[in-house]
Amino acid sequence: MRTEIENLGEFGLIDHLTKNNEIRNAGTILSVGDDAAVIDQFGRQSVITTDMLVEGIHFDLMYTPLKHLGYKSVVVNLSDICAMMATPTHITISLALSNKVSVEALEEFYEGVYAACDKYGVDLIGGDTTSTKSGLVISITAIGEVAPDKFVTRSGAGDKDLICVTGDLGAAYLGLQLLEREKKIFLENPSVQPDLQQQAYLVGRILKPEPRMDIIEWMNEHAIFPTSMIDISDGLSSEVLHLCTKSDKGCVLYEEKLPLHPDTKNIAMQFGVSATTCALSGGEDYELLFTVKHEDYDKVARNSNISIIGYMTTIAEGKHLITTGGNKHQLTAQGWNAFA
Amino acid sequence: MRTEIENLGEFGLIDHLTKNNEIRNAGTILSVGDDAAVIDQFGRQSVITTDMLVEGIHFDLMYTPLKHLGYKSVVVNLSDICAMMATPTHITISLALSNKVSVEALEEFYEGVYAACDKYGVDLIGGDTTSTKSGLVISITAIGEVAPDKFVTRSGAGDKDLICVTGDLGAAYLGLQLLEREKKIFLENPSVQPDLQQQAYLVGRILKPEPRMDIIEWMNEHAIFPTSMIDISDGLSSEVLHLCTKSDKGCVLYEEKLPLHPDTKNIAMQFGVSATTCALSGGEDYELLFTVKHEDYDKVARNSNISIIGYMTTIAEGKHLITTGGNKHQLTAQGWNAFA
Repeated sequence: MRTEIENLGEFGLIDHLTKNNEIRNAGTILSVGDDAAVIDQFGRQSVITTDMLVEGIHFDLMYTPLKHLGYKSVVVNLSDICAMMATPTHITISLALSNKVSVEALEEFYEGVYAACDKYGVDLIGGDTTSTKSGLVISITAIGEVAPDKFVTRSGAGDKDLICVTGDLGAAYLGLQLLEREKKIFLENPSVQPDLQQQAYLVGRILKPEPRMDIIEWMNEHAIFPTSMIDISDGLSSEVLHLCTKSDKGCVLYEEKLPLHPDTKNIAMQFGVSATTCALSGGEDYELLFTVKHEDYDKVARNSNISIIGYMTTIAEGKHLITTGGNKHQLTAQGWNAFA
Repeated sequence: MRTEIENLGEFGLIDHLTKNNEIRNAGTILSVGDDAAVIDQFGRQSVITTDMLVEGIHFDLMYTPLKHLGYKSVVVNLSDICAMMATPTHITISLALSNKVSVEALEEFYEGVYAACDKYGVDLIGGDTTSTKSGLVISITAIGEVAPDKFVTRSGAGDKDLICVTGDLGAAYLGLQLLEREKKIFLENPSVQPDLQQQAYLVGRILKPEPRMDIIEWMNEHAIFPTSMIDISDGLSSEVLHLCTKSDKGCVLYEEKLPLHPDTKNIAMQFGVSATTCALSGGEDYELLFTVKHEDYDKVARNSNISIIGYMTTIAEGKHLITTGGNKHQLTAQGWNAFA
């Protein structure tokens, strides 16, 4: 018998393979199934996450400068640590390289890695470098720390909790579409120089995301403790549905509340796609999606980097998006699927 | 300017890329350059290591059962934790898979992963699963714990310290040659069934290595604290030279003291290669190589799983192998190089 992986999808596959996973160490507080794992080490807690990036699947070296790739590879992991409300401290990097990659190219990649380490106070403490006959594969593990039991999972959202998101959404997806369009033009006519200067914001969002450490620090300063949290890598709807599933809740989102950058609206119109769809399904925003108790409304509303986009409901009420026109749509995950 | 990676080699490349690596966190005790890194977490210490295995470079799915591959992928990381004299506690696994891999095949792989976790009391706490257009890539990170400052590095060997090795050497390399020979025969004539039953020991050594946790426990029980330690993945000479370089020492090894299994001697003869060469350069033994002070001779000599194969010297005396015939040879690393 042969079951294809795409029949299960990435999350189904992970659930399937880890359903019999046993926990043997008393120090294992949170295992597979969140943004990161939590282990108790001698009374304090460490947070661990890992991500793998594959050439041709997650990045295209034709329009991804290696320095940006190094920076982003670190950042996507730091973002997972943030999503636990922890502070990143250490990373390891493993690379599988073909002999097409020169030492100078790798130096550029590491420049980006060190720039991210420097900006976020993280130490690179190890790794592995090996060869491959095909494209570049990058695997990074990040470790962070959090005060005992002060980490935030995906599973604590309560009925009527407010759903909040940082920054703006959909821009990275449109940045990627712009890069893909320029690549196509270039391949058809190499004498045409790409002109992306007008679109620095959108292109910057896909090539150089930042983890929202600033928001974690702000929450700590203002004693805001989210009931659940996740970072947005696959797209808002996919992530909201994760919070609903893990917390056994439903949700209502308001289209008019979704934070969109003016450039996102302009370029979505130019591409003839709905900016709302970009926000819901685009992915790679690396913003934080979280829920807070209703009484935290005033605190959260005061921060201009945070948008309140809806609220959690009971599971029986379902998962919905209310459009600007007042229509009610079932929320479905159309996020990016590596196996699609 | 373009520099090819093979001009630097794996270790040269890592040195080159990490020469400007800054340490920002006071808790970073040991960084890049040993079997694992050590970080101080709230007064106790954690050990972290990571390894990447690439299809076609590190394993051949034609003769590697997936369950064994899962088991071995975990073990090679636990072996690095052992080599720090630490106890492994947690792992994460990331996989890049092509759509050639079925869910059932992955289940087999995870059976092996869980078998290793079970045997060594380790928890699988996270990972990432993604697709690739080419072969399977496995990246594992292992975490362990060690009492404060009780970890053993590669750099503490002193002049006249005894050089010790666990188990026997060269068997995994010959096991691999047997598998390669059977593969060739099979490809030429698929009706010929491989007969490896007589060679269960050698084939077992390449397909199902074990980390020497038993030796670490024995050392702890008998209060033996090595001055330096490394695990043997690339071959004895390569690893001895690492200890010499990191400890600023020379060494003398005795050919007649190298531990060889009877099957290793037999099959080496059959293949027309020197069993000593297999031991020195074969690799994948996952035995421990360590140095102890001269006064620990009696304690170490009593353990039949440990062979004393030579001693450290001053750096000026060089690095040598004394053959059974009494000749003195310069020791050179001919270990396995992923970029060769």
